[in-house]
Amino acid sequence: MNNNTQHHDTTPAADLPAVDFYFDFSSPYGYIASERIEAVAATHGRLVHWHPLLLGVVFQSTGGAPLVNVPLKGQYHEHDFLRSARLHGVEFHRPSRFPVSGVAATRLFYWLQQHSPVLAVALAQALYRAFFIHDIDIADPEQALQVFNDLRLSKPALFEQLSSAGPALTLDAARTGMGSAEIKQRSRSETEAAMARGVFGSPFFLVDGEAFWGLDRLDQVARWMQQAW
Amino acid sequence: MNNNTQHHDTTPAADLPAVDFYFDFSSPYGYIASERIEAVAATHGRLVHWHPLLLGVVFQSTGGAPLVNVPLKGQYHEHDFLRSARLHGVEFHRPSRFPVSGVAATRLFYWLQQHSPVLAVALAQALYRAFFIHDIDIADPEQALQVFNDLRLSKPALFEQLSSAGPALTLDAARTGMGSAEIKQRSRSETEAAMARGVFGSPFFLVDGEAFWGLDRLDQVARWMQQAW
Repeated sequence: MNNNTQHHDTTPAADLPAVDFYFDFSSPYGYIASERIEAVAATHGRLVHWHPLLLGVVFQSTGGAPLVNVPLKGQYHEHDFLRSARLHGVEFHRPSRFPVSGVAATRLFYWLQQHSPVLAVALAQALYRAFFIHDIDIADPEQALQVFNDLRLSKPALFEQLSSAGPALTLDAARTGMGSAEIKQRSRSETEAAMARGVFGSPFFLVDGEAFWGLDRLDQVARWMQQAW
Repeated sequence: MNNNTQHHDTTPAADLPAVDFYFDFSSPYGYIASERIEAVAATHGRLVHWHPLLLGVVFQSTGGAPLVNVPLKGQYHEHDFLRSARLHGVEFHRPSRFPVSGVAATRLFYWLQQHSPVLAVALAQALYRAFFIHDIDIADPEQALQVFNDLRLSKPALFEQLSSAGPALTLDAARTGMGSAEIKQRSRSETEAAMARGVFGSPFFLVDGEAFWGLDRLDQVARWMQQAW
């Protein structure tokens, strides 16, 4: 992008590529980024495509490990999670069980995304807040489903409208959907597709083919949209 | 620090604690930080204490590995080294041999620091530039010594003055000094002291007891000096 002043209205322009936002549901930095990325992208006239992934599968290839399990690094990051949340003005409470598996939340996301990409984003935000604000163990499929159900009950008109246009988006449908072979495979293939694009961490951003890893690169993501360097 | 306007002159104030700057001589992000940290600290009235360390020794404890050897991460960082250098306006050429051992450079630094902390910083900058601009293999003790000798020849009055106050700081003295058991032990104990303070990467900054890891935290280091959050 060579023009650094043209696209600063807050309405995403159809002609600008979306920002691809990759994250794991157990990632604190992914959560904080999830609370910021839509606003950052919108400022530069961009939409955001949300891509939950299974960092555990990625780590099988890269030899990575959850931050908090690494000597020295673990202590640093436990402190930095809180400091980063304060810096970004995001509410954050260290979950009592952490890290957890993001598999259930990821499957639920991709099941709902098939029916409504917009609601899937709302679900991702609700799942993240459930885990990082309200200490709900979203690794437990039933607790993740409860977050979905709360979302469903909070937007009855929207869910009714979607249900009338396709299969009913009930709690039972969600339970069956997230357990289906198709959705299990989808969660895995989305992770593999992310790795094929070079993604190896959470959060991870792709903007105009340029990769940025980490919450602390959010400023660079914004800067790149304004003026690549 | 509660006052965010008081200390913005460019003369480091004696009453403000120095910023501790930890780095490995083979670290591209450490090199880029080394070109910025003095100015950032001076803006906030701080001095900088330079602490080269042996990241290989740290990795024995943390299970870390050189970035470029990790699948996916390696490719990302090879690209990001160049992008980060452009962002910070720092000249950078990817050394043909990389990564290398920082042992020789670290020993030379601590030998010279015993005689002159100021010249040791100048030497650190010269070693980094030799490696990351001029593709000189500073892992080779003789090539590292040549960087020292060039520095010596570029500041004859200063070296003569120091030599008259203590042992002569000649090329031979440097060669003997960096090979001494005392300096070998010092390099290792400095690395251990860093780890005891929680340092596990390069660059790593400690300011008023607060730890920041990575070049992409340089903005946060500056912000913390202005107003802790």
